[in-house]
Amino acid sequence: MRDFSFKNATDIRFGKDHIDAELHDAVAQFGNNVLFIYGGHSIQKSGLYDRVKGLLNDLNVVELGGVEPNPKISSVRDGQKLAQDNNVDVILAVGGGSVIDAAKVISSAKFYNGDAWDLVVNANGADSYKLDEVPIVDILTLSATGTEMNHNAVISNPEINEKIGTRVPETPAISFLDPELTETVPARQTAAGSIDIMSHLTEQYFDRDDANDVSKGMIEGLMRTVIKWAPVAIKNPSNYDARANLMWSSTMALNGIVSVANVTGWTVHPLEHELSAYYDITHGIGLGILTPRWMKQVIEDETTLPLFARLARIVWHLTGDDDLTLAKQAIQKTYEWNASLGAEMTLPEVGISDDSKFDVMAKAGVEEGQLETAGYIKLTPADVVAIYQDSMTPEMF
Amino acid sequence: MRDFSFKNATDIRFGKDHIDAELHDAVAQFGNNVLFIYGGHSIQKSGLYDRVKGLLNDLNVVELGGVEPNPKISSVRDGQKLAQDNNVDVILAVGGGSVIDAAKVISSAKFYNGDAWDLVVNANGADSYKLDEVPIVDILTLSATGTEMNHNAVISNPEINEKIGTRVPETPAISFLDPELTETVPARQTAAGSIDIMSHLTEQYFDRDDANDVSKGMIEGLMRTVIKWAPVAIKNPSNYDARANLMWSSTMALNGIVSVANVTGWTVHPLEHELSAYYDITHGIGLGILTPRWMKQVIEDETTLPLFARLARIVWHLTGDDDLTLAKQAIQKTYEWNASLGAEMTLPEVGISDDSKFDVMAKAGVEEGQLETAGYIKLTPADVVAIYQDSMTPEMF
Repeated sequence: MRDFSFKNATDIRFGKDHIDAELHDAVAQFGNNVLFIYGGHSIQKSGLYDRVKGLLNDLNVVELGGVEPNPKISSVRDGQKLAQDNNVDVILAVGGGSVIDAAKVISSAKFYNGDAWDLVVNANGADSYKLDEVPIVDILTLSATGTEMNHNAVISNPEINEKIGTRVPETPAISFLDPELTETVPARQTAAGSIDIMSHLTEQYFDRDDANDVSKGMIEGLMRTVIKWAPVAIKNPSNYDARANLMWSSTMALNGIVSVANVTGWTVHPLEHELSAYYDITHGIGLGILTPRWMKQVIEDETTLPLFARLARIVWHLTGDDDLTLAKQAIQKTYEWNASLGAEMTLPEVGISDDSKFDVMAKAGVEEGQLETAGYIKLTPADVVAIYQDSMTPEMF
Repeated sequence: MRDFSFKNATDIRFGKDHIDAELHDAVAQFGNNVLFIYGGHSIQKSGLYDRVKGLLNDLNVVELGGVEPNPKISSVRDGQKLAQDNNVDVILAVGGGSVIDAAKVISSAKFYNGDAWDLVVNANGADSYKLDEVPIVDILTLSATGTEMNHNAVISNPEINEKIGTRVPETPAISFLDPELTETVPARQTAAGSIDIMSHLTEQYFDRDDANDVSKGMIEGLMRTVIKWAPVAIKNPSNYDARANLMWSSTMALNGIVSVANVTGWTVHPLEHELSAYYDITHGIGLGILTPRWMKQVIEDETTLPLFARLARIVWHLTGDDDLTLAKQAIQKTYEWNASLGAEMTLPEVGISDDSKFDVMAKAGVEEGQLETAGYIKLTPADVVAIYQDSMTPEMF
């Protein structure tokens, strides 16, 4: 097992009864000037907006609404100005991953006098780690990205067609995770979020440090949890236990715990980013299409087969003596589980029926993910084109 | 799933190459006055004592050596005086659970002017949570208790025959976990430590909140890890991966992550505490004897059987359709695994051949664990006597 360092000080308040009892003091302990960040109208429709405003009615609250699903640098710049103009002491982010991601960059940007995009790309001497930070309190409304307990943020800059993942110095100070708030998430978003969680787990499971059974064992448990509860949440959106298991799984999947000591980078995410860059498709759906095809592509490497067979036995409860057969069955199960959630399983179904961009996408994906050197299994652009091509039809084996 | 709060800010430095590179700054960031706490001569024999002293040679180091395996309040009082007399800024605890447990109470006791025992029992208005604390940096040399990343400390007061578990305000600030330091741990202690880890996992797995698949899934992965690697470490003490998997499992088993949302208390630990109170037996060995008998006692309750069958399938890889058969096989496997580590599996083998104290032990164990109300399965003193009696002979089913 490789050496690692791990620290994560986010204070999690999980469940139905924390927000009303604790939100005010959780925010006010940091000061009176609050920047309240949220996305579209869903928190107004659901009543969460009024609830939050009511709880903070003795504080000075300025608002940044309308943060986009893929948060834009323009929203971050707006937040930076609001934070500076109002000498904000604390940021309250209410929403899904996008809102919290934007809050994370604004948190450092308050203490930076240049363009906030510098912080995202670490340009012009801007390094958020050298700056002070406004503490973040958040209320999560969607189970998917894990941003509520990690250092990551993804910000888009449409002026220059860039979408960049950045790492901020501190995880959120306090995250309120109330599964009830996700009961109104539509089936399709629930499916995409669940597939996203499974993909995070898969990317971390297939790692070259094959001696780390602690991480692999915990990942297997989280996978079984998501496999079991996502269909329940889709069939019965107000099943609290389903929402709770998905919510806590999504946090645990990406708070760093299950990837300590990992050595190799992610593969399917860079390949999906290229799809999203050229076509307007949902991230989780794209991952669900690509993952089984990536698995097919790498399954017969002698170093991967034992781990695929382990996945088959422990996660999919398959039995048998032949590893290759088991591995193929596990991949088929992955495909069928994605499909059972109502997710499209081919590229043409999501509007990509033309393969003319595959070469350029493959090249860029290999470069982004350093897939020829840093990936779990080496992939060349030609390998990636094969994965995209294989995603054009539903046939698996 | 029940509501919960979770926060754990301990900074973990795991692996071979952290101590020499990072120990000095990890300690010195808190100040120049260091209280260095350790146990017996093993860190002198192994060279760790000299290594640590060398790394801290520009700091003012006062020492408290000789902390006992079950740390006594007299050692804590000695540490309190040293910390106060030398205005200590930081405590460096080097050793196993006992040394770190003592350090945790000394950490608050520096700021208390009465008897440190008051802090352990929360008497005389002493409440460590209301006091300041000296930060703790530790170097762990034994994988078992999980103290390196939790709030727990167990302190003995032989003058009044008490051994009390207490909860301190903060987890250690920084814990260095170097699996190499455990390669000299003898086979018997490795076995007892591994059985202790398995017991921590078992106590948290059998919980009444049956909707929490996140915790149960992660526990299953940790159990499989310990089951796999403990025999390897015993057979080949310097197998680094075995020591690393055991070390990280022991931390993850008791840092709070896998018991969030749990609702019921522990059962086998209170029953073992009574054995230890009356006889000089090793904690982990006592747990290993009692656990399969407790399982036998509660297996046929209709609420427990599905979880035992799940344990059988997921942790012990057993197959079959009859839950009771599977459950019994899982219990047998638990017994055989303990025995395979070289642990004694009956009370007479550890010197308890007389059942005359079982009644009084059972009554005290039920009271300590509130087993008639707060346990996973209600146990009366008569049930506990049956568990002790069943532990007199090797027969299981």
